[in-house]
Formats: sequence, C-alpha cells, structure tokens
Amino acid sequence: MPKIIVEIMPKQDLLDPQGKAVANALTRMGNKDISGVRIGKRIELHFDREVTDKDLEDAKKQAKEFLSNDVIEDVVAVTVEN
Amino acid sequence: MPKIIVEIMPKQDLLDPQGKAVANALTRMGNKDISGVRIGKRIELHFDREVTDKDLEDAKKQAKEFLSNDVIEDVVAVTVEN
Repeated sequence: MPKIIVEIMPKQDLLDPQGKAVANALTRMGNKDISGVRIGKRIELHFDREVTDKDLEDAKKQAKEFLSNDVIEDVVAVTVEN
Repeated sequence: MPKIIVEIMPKQDLLDPQGKAVANALTRMGNKDISGVRIGKRIELHFDREVTDKDLEDAKKQAKEFLSNDVIEDVVAVTVEN
C-alpha cells in the first residue's frame, strides 16, 4: 500500500523519561554500550493510489504544523513508500 | 552520533484509535486522499562508538523481545545510522 512515513522525535534538549526508563532497563539487562535511548513516533499516512510529489509536500507541511508539536518535537524524516 | 533505529507499528488487524483520530482530523482538514493513518514508535538506541554487526544483531533481538509487544506490535525495521 502506498504510504508516506513521518518520523518525529522529542527535541534533543528535552528530557525523555520513557526513553530514559528503557535505557536503564537495557543497561540492567547487560547492554553497557548503549549510551542513551530516545523514543519518538512513526506515523504512516496511507493512500489508495500512488503518492505524488504534491502529497509529499502536503505531508511535510502537516507533519510540521499538525502531526508534531513544534515546541517539544522535531520532524526528522518524511519519506514515501510506494 | 552512531545509532540504531528501531521502528515498531501496531499490527495491521489491530484497531489504532490514535491513528483513527488523526485520520479523521486530516479528512476534516480537507485531505480526502489519505485512506488511513497508523501511529507507531521510533526508538533510537545511541552509541558512543561505531555500531557493529553484533550490536545490530543484539538490537534486532531486543526489538522483538523487549522493545516491542509481540502480541500487538510488529517490528518493521531495525537500521543503523553511523
């Protein structure tokens, strides 16, 4: 199914308690080499037809203005999977 | 910073009320062409050194056994970004 994938992460200078908890758990489980974990969102927008350049443009705008919270999150990628 | 990115999505036959809400909102905003929205997780595992093949293997195992809930989620990708 054609889709646009929007990837959103918490801003770097923001605490991410959920990520911190996972990082602590991984360390407890013996993964000493993982220095940190951040947990963000992966949003799939599905289409019943091929994704056009216009769709991608629209999705980038929506990702910034609607799907993410600009105060605490960064849109790190918007990609098409046809 | 070297990192492994784990992408996790809710299983296809599972309701995703958050995704449904976003899909409805996008339709209300005039995006008639988006047939559905699914919202999953994007987890970054950070390393202070280069990521090795062994790290990737470990991460794939952790993604399946610990980072995702096998009953309701699928690991859709585990990638390295050095």
